Amino acid sequence: MPQTMAEKILSRASKRSSVSPGDIVEADIDLAMVHDLTGPHVVEVVKEIAGEVKVWDPDKVAIIFDHHVPADKIRAAELQLIMRRVSRKLGIKKFHDVGRGGICHQVLVEERYARPGMLIVGADSHTVTSGAVGAFATGIGASDMAMVWLTGRLWFMVPESVKVNINGTLPKGVYAKDVILHIIGTVTVDGATYKAVEYHGETVRRMNIADRMTLANMSVEMGAKAGMVPADETTVRFFEEVGITIKPFGPDEGAEYADVWEFDVSNLEPQVAAPHSVDNVRPVTELEGTPIDQAFIGSCTNGRYEDFVEAAKILKGRKIADGVRCIAIPASLKQYMKLLKEGIIDILVDAGCFVAHSTCGPCLGGHLGVLGPGEVAISSSNRNFKGRMGHPESKVYLASPATVAASAVEGKIADPRKYL
Amino acid sequence: MPQTMAEKILSRASKRSSVSPGDIVEADIDLAMVHDLTGPHVVEVVKEIAGEVKVWDPDKVAIIFDHHVPADKIRAAELQLIMRRVSRKLGIKKFHDVGRGGICHQVLVEERYARPGMLIVGADSHTVTSGAVGAFATGIGASDMAMVWLTGRLWFMVPESVKVNINGTLPKGVYAKDVILHIIGTVTVDGATYKAVEYHGETVRRMNIADRMTLANMSVEMGAKAGMVPADETTVRFFEEVGITIKPFGPDEGAEYADVWEFDVSNLEPQVAAPHSVDNVRPVTELEGTPIDQAFIGSCTNGRYEDFVEAAKILKGRKIADGVRCIAIPASLKQYMKLLKEGIIDILVDAGCFVAHSTCGPCLGGHLGVLGPGEVAISSSNRNFKGRMGHPESKVYLASPATVAASAVEGKIADPRKYL
Repeated sequence: MPQTMAEKILSRASKRSSVSPGDIVEADIDLAMVHDLTGPHVVEVVKEIAGEVKVWDPDKVAIIFDHHVPADKIRAAELQLIMRRVSRKLGIKKFHDVGRGGICHQVLVEERYARPGMLIVGADSHTVTSGAVGAFATGIGASDMAMVWLTGRLWFMVPESVKVNINGTLPKGVYAKDVILHIIGTVTVDGATYKAVEYHGETVRRMNIADRMTLANMSVEMGAKAGMVPADETTVRFFEEVGITIKPFGPDEGAEYADVWEFDVSNLEPQVAAPHSVDNVRPVTELEGTPIDQAFIGSCTNGRYEDFVEAAKILKGRKIADGVRCIAIPASLKQYMKLLKEGIIDILVDAGCFVAHSTCGPCLGGHLGVLGPGEVAISSSNRNFKGRMGHPESKVYLASPATVAASAVEGKIADPRKYL
Repeated sequence: MPQTMAEKILSRASKRSSVSPGDIVEADIDLAMVHDLTGPHVVEVVKEIAGEVKVWDPDKVAIIFDHHVPADKIRAAELQLIMRRVSRKLGIKKFHDVGRGGICHQVLVEERYARPGMLIVGADSHTVTSGAVGAFATGIGASDMAMVWLTGRLWFMVPESVKVNINGTLPKGVYAKDVILHIIGTVTVDGATYKAVEYHGETVRRMNIADRMTLANMSVEMGAKAGMVPADETTVRFFEEVGITIKPFGPDEGAEYADVWEFDVSNLEPQVAAPHSVDNVRPVTELEGTPIDQAFIGSCTNGRYEDFVEAAKILKGRKIADGVRCIAIPASLKQYMKLLKEGIIDILVDAGCFVAHSTCGPCLGGHLGVLGPGEVAISSSNRNFKGRMGHPESKVYLASPATVAASAVEGKIADPRKYL
């Protein structure tokens, strides 16, 4: 029976010939990731159950510091101390300390820890990002993760799969972020609850891995269990770059989907998700002129080299508006270094951006740009519920790095197309 | 009657022909500085007294955000909002928002707000830094600052002056930081309580402004009311660089000092202040091999271009030791940009440093590298009392940027001389 990507991965991982939506399976985990904030909870539960900290396979566990990096309070330092000791004790090679990796989801893909066809769990909701290379990757809670650490296995209900066909050439100034915002705006925040979403169509096939990560990353914002892009020639080349040979991976021909969504993006405008919901999406032209206090370019959604290159096209030779802070944080050390070597960081700094090394930073209201009461931010990140980036009376608009950059220059929400 | 630098400044500012130690004078303030943390307290007191926020002269007030920049918590954002509104309302031109300046003491000197012969007060103890260009600059509390905002005047008891003669050529690997640590180690943390310290001698005359700032900055760590370097040809050139003509300024010939301290630094070793006091100073050779968890290069004491150039000499082509975080934060946007343009940031990042834009950061345990229990840091900053950089059970060693860099490479306190 032909299967979708999710079904193929879950049947392989549970050693079945096939699975169907609704089946409960117990599956072998290929990769389990925790970060500085969720890791200590996992360690606690593991110790409670097993009397000591251990993992079924240290080579399949990744521990990546990103949320409060470098430590922004004593408690953060304490949590990092715990995970540093655990990493050492367990011999975790996929351990990325402060300044040694970056945002966990970026690191999983960039280090090629995530591979096509893998079953990946992470103690963070944006673990779905690894779907960009054709993995079934999903966020789980600390107790579930503790079971994974102890047994290497976890139960899943096989999700229904949704096929999203995206076609058309993206207009200038319109990016993967606009596409996924448009999709979420259309289907709403529970439009794909517990579904495995597959992204198909010529638009997706033309996207690089960075763009595919943006799509996969925000799948969770419409409730998806996983968001996947078939591994194609682009994916093969992405792994070849570092000398790894992979095979393309996609759904079987004739696989059955619970739903098929068609999107034509040929005439898509830049999109903005207005407060306080990711599905409150409007074309930028409807929100132009809204004053902002802070602009943020970064996060696991849009903090990659390609994102800053687009932002820099707009920021080059221009200045951030008076009264606006523009915070620019590459998603990983490797992204940061590439931007540094190519002079993009120079452009950002010349424009007046506050640039920091890779960390989650202001995306979650953690540090490096927490919003005060009444403040308004435009952000390339992924969530804008009340208080996400700081005070409950602050407001967050979500958009592409280009829209964020244009807005930073004008001091109000602006259409990036006029700068390109 | 011949007068010391402090006496000349205080007599001019209080419109007297001369003053003597112990005199109480009411003096006109030339420049009053607050930052994001102390500013709101000042505003509160001013409002309480005057019913509204106002300043005697907006051109003589500087408001500089540096302590929690960008905002690392909602409270920090709230405080910055207050000061942003106050700056706008009062028309403060010397206002430096997030990403628009840097550490307040660096900004005062770098922007040439501080000038020879000025009487400067700041609501931060390291205001003494501006003494590097021959100003009498001192830290005051929020209530005193409120009176300054309202009247432009403040009372002072004229301090006794101490002349510190520093002679000899600094050996390779030994810097202004080692000199001032050595002095503080010798005279102890209350060795200059309420004294105006003047730095003289051939070693000081050969120092650039960056080095002189390090000397002046740490004067407060031995209790000094002010730490001053006479404005000489080096100072004149520093102002000429930006088209400002100043005159040399120093003590009158024959001025009387309460004490004269002689230091010969020809054979000085790199110095380290061990926990938990700035005067617990030993030669690096006595502490070599002490394991560290974190290294910090930055702060108003040693976060300048010149400091990172020295650190980069050691870090170039080397890697930060496993298990060590090396955090590098230039003291201002201008320092950061110069380091960026000259490829020094590249060297730091290649070595594995976590680099951030200018902010006080970990120096005061604020954010960007707070220490956990039992952790050990070596830092180019200025204070190492219990809990200064985080948990009360953490330990801080203070040293020059070169010693910090060498230690970061080895993962333990190291002598920089072997790398130079």
